[in-house]
Amino acid sequence: MSQVKAYGAQDKDADLKQIDIERREVKDKDVKIQITYCGVCHSDIHTVRNDWGGSKYPVVPGHEIIGKVVEVGNQVSNFKEGDLVGVGCMVDSCRECDPCKNDLEQFCENGMVGTYNGKDKHLGGHTFGGYSEMIVVEEHFVLSIPKNLDEKAVAPLLCAGITTYSPLRHWNVQEGDKVGVIGLGGLGHMGIKLAHAMGAKVVMITTSPKKAEDAKRLGADEVLISKDEEAMKKHANSFDFLLNTVPVKHDINPYLALLKIDATMVMVGAIEPLEPMHGGSLIMGRKRVAGSLIGGIKETQEMLDFCGEHNVVSDVEVIDMQNINDAYERVVNSDVKYRFVIDMESLRN
Amino acid sequence: MSQVKAYGAQDKDADLKQIDIERREVKDKDVKIQITYCGVCHSDIHTVRNDWGGSKYPVVPGHEIIGKVVEVGNQVSNFKEGDLVGVGCMVDSCRECDPCKNDLEQFCENGMVGTYNGKDKHLGGHTFGGYSEMIVVEEHFVLSIPKNLDEKAVAPLLCAGITTYSPLRHWNVQEGDKVGVIGLGGLGHMGIKLAHAMGAKVVMITTSPKKAEDAKRLGADEVLISKDEEAMKKHANSFDFLLNTVPVKHDINPYLALLKIDATMVMVGAIEPLEPMHGGSLIMGRKRVAGSLIGGIKETQEMLDFCGEHNVVSDVEVIDMQNINDAYERVVNSDVKYRFVIDMESLRN
Repeated sequence: MSQVKAYGAQDKDADLKQIDIERREVKDKDVKIQITYCGVCHSDIHTVRNDWGGSKYPVVPGHEIIGKVVEVGNQVSNFKEGDLVGVGCMVDSCRECDPCKNDLEQFCENGMVGTYNGKDKHLGGHTFGGYSEMIVVEEHFVLSIPKNLDEKAVAPLLCAGITTYSPLRHWNVQEGDKVGVIGLGGLGHMGIKLAHAMGAKVVMITTSPKKAEDAKRLGADEVLISKDEEAMKKHANSFDFLLNTVPVKHDINPYLALLKIDATMVMVGAIEPLEPMHGGSLIMGRKRVAGSLIGGIKETQEMLDFCGEHNVVSDVEVIDMQNINDAYERVVNSDVKYRFVIDMESLRN
Repeated sequence: MSQVKAYGAQDKDADLKQIDIERREVKDKDVKIQITYCGVCHSDIHTVRNDWGGSKYPVVPGHEIIGKVVEVGNQVSNFKEGDLVGVGCMVDSCRECDPCKNDLEQFCENGMVGTYNGKDKHLGGHTFGGYSEMIVVEEHFVLSIPKNLDEKAVAPLLCAGITTYSPLRHWNVQEGDKVGVIGLGGLGHMGIKLAHAMGAKVVMITTSPKKAEDAKRLGADEVLISKDEEAMKKHANSFDFLLNTVPVKHDINPYLALLKIDATMVMVGAIEPLEPMHGGSLIMGRKRVAGSLIGGIKETQEMLDFCGEHNVVSDVEVIDMQNINDAYERVVNSDVKYRFVIDMESLRN
């Protein structure tokens, strides 16, 4: 065990402050990573504030981790000292159940271990995330980062990137498909970039006309203002796929009206109760609505490689660790384009 | 044009009474059918009572029609006088749009013509359904009835049968799959029979323990009482497919918890707003909810042929036309096992 510096919250109303946490010794299959950057995900804030219940304190958030390998265990074969690597939302799973065997560790029947607030099998207690100097993770859950990408802008790919890439791939979005991305935040901006890189005709769907220009800069071919009933009618029954990144309760019926026969809208943002869905919104046109949760480790590596090939990264604003509490307020107010990333050098200084 | 006897309602509060309606002359592609039996669908009642709005009076309901061909047009090739035939929920569509060309007439972009309450292209006004002596329908919308089946028990296949067969087939239910049928009414009882005939392991899911015995008689391997939280927990994440036939507003979240990863629940009953769905119910396990509406004409013929091969018909209670108003009360009170069928001879007498 070694003590490392981290930033954590002691209870749901507390600001994040510097604390010391323990990291395990490097075991045979482990990779020890000196963290260089860590993205700020809205889930971090929900966990710090115990919005979903079940938070264990101190909470040390962070599951968009980039860093350099500083030590590897005896049985590690894919990584060596000096490699640039990433860690996303999971640091462990049972590896034996059907979902694990099928590269869907996020749905592990025995419970995947979250990068923070998960059950720490090694030290007991709960896991601590990436708002820290160092982390030790089993090799299977460590990702390779393409060398051509800007490492700080890669961090959000580990959560926002895979969360949007996975459904686009799983529902087989093809070149030329008309894809709608609903909501322009951390997830939505990655959805636009990734769908565009896949060759789709991307329509940004938003309540807010002032987001139009930015959406086009990010790769949207068109912007559809969802409050404009005429425009919504014009696009009715025309979308091959919709990626719904809206993170709060909302009415999905107007979006279902946009889908072609047999087409699907995938929810990746809202994990809370939605406004009542009409059965008829699905029945007329044999439409579908589905959910998707991050992605498995294999697919996360595929996503990173895809981003390397297509030069896709997140739009980020880099902050010092000491400014995290202000950053949280700005995330809550949707005042970030489009992801904060913490320069972890600021914690070490 | 010829006048025929029918039963219709003059306004939303009126009982059904005998009235005279007009049927068109037989055109080149038309088949004239002397109706022998007509099933009673809950939609008939909704339309008579204008529950969904848009009812045109007089309403002559009935879209589960069985009868004998008595005359065919010059260009009719598939039917001849004396054939036993059926007519379901549609009597026309544009035949030119993509859905029509892909055998999905129910989703015709120019609007399929309902067997009743649709726009009558020939006589003007609106279409009149099967609660009548006679109907004239274009050949494409006329179905062949397998000779080995009891014709009166076939009538409900034209709506309840295809409504449940189509999603079971479209979502590719296979032998050995664990299929849940939610709700035991007209649709649910056909869902059980059809899924059983496809070789699925069928679980009847109902709020009502007293339906258990009947469900097993119909072909269910097991009955799951949805109010029994322990039992629901035992079946969590275990279903390959769910067919939801509940016709009213309800909470779908407990059913979504029953689905395996990537599995789908298809709604065929409720066309109204449901209780709020939780985004998390879909996101955890990449689950799906979809809708399905009757089926195209080609698939309806396939369903009838399948029922012929597997000797599947509806459980019916045969009534005289004169008893229709009492029957409606019993349908509304779920007091029928499982479909009323009108013996149309009673109208002719």
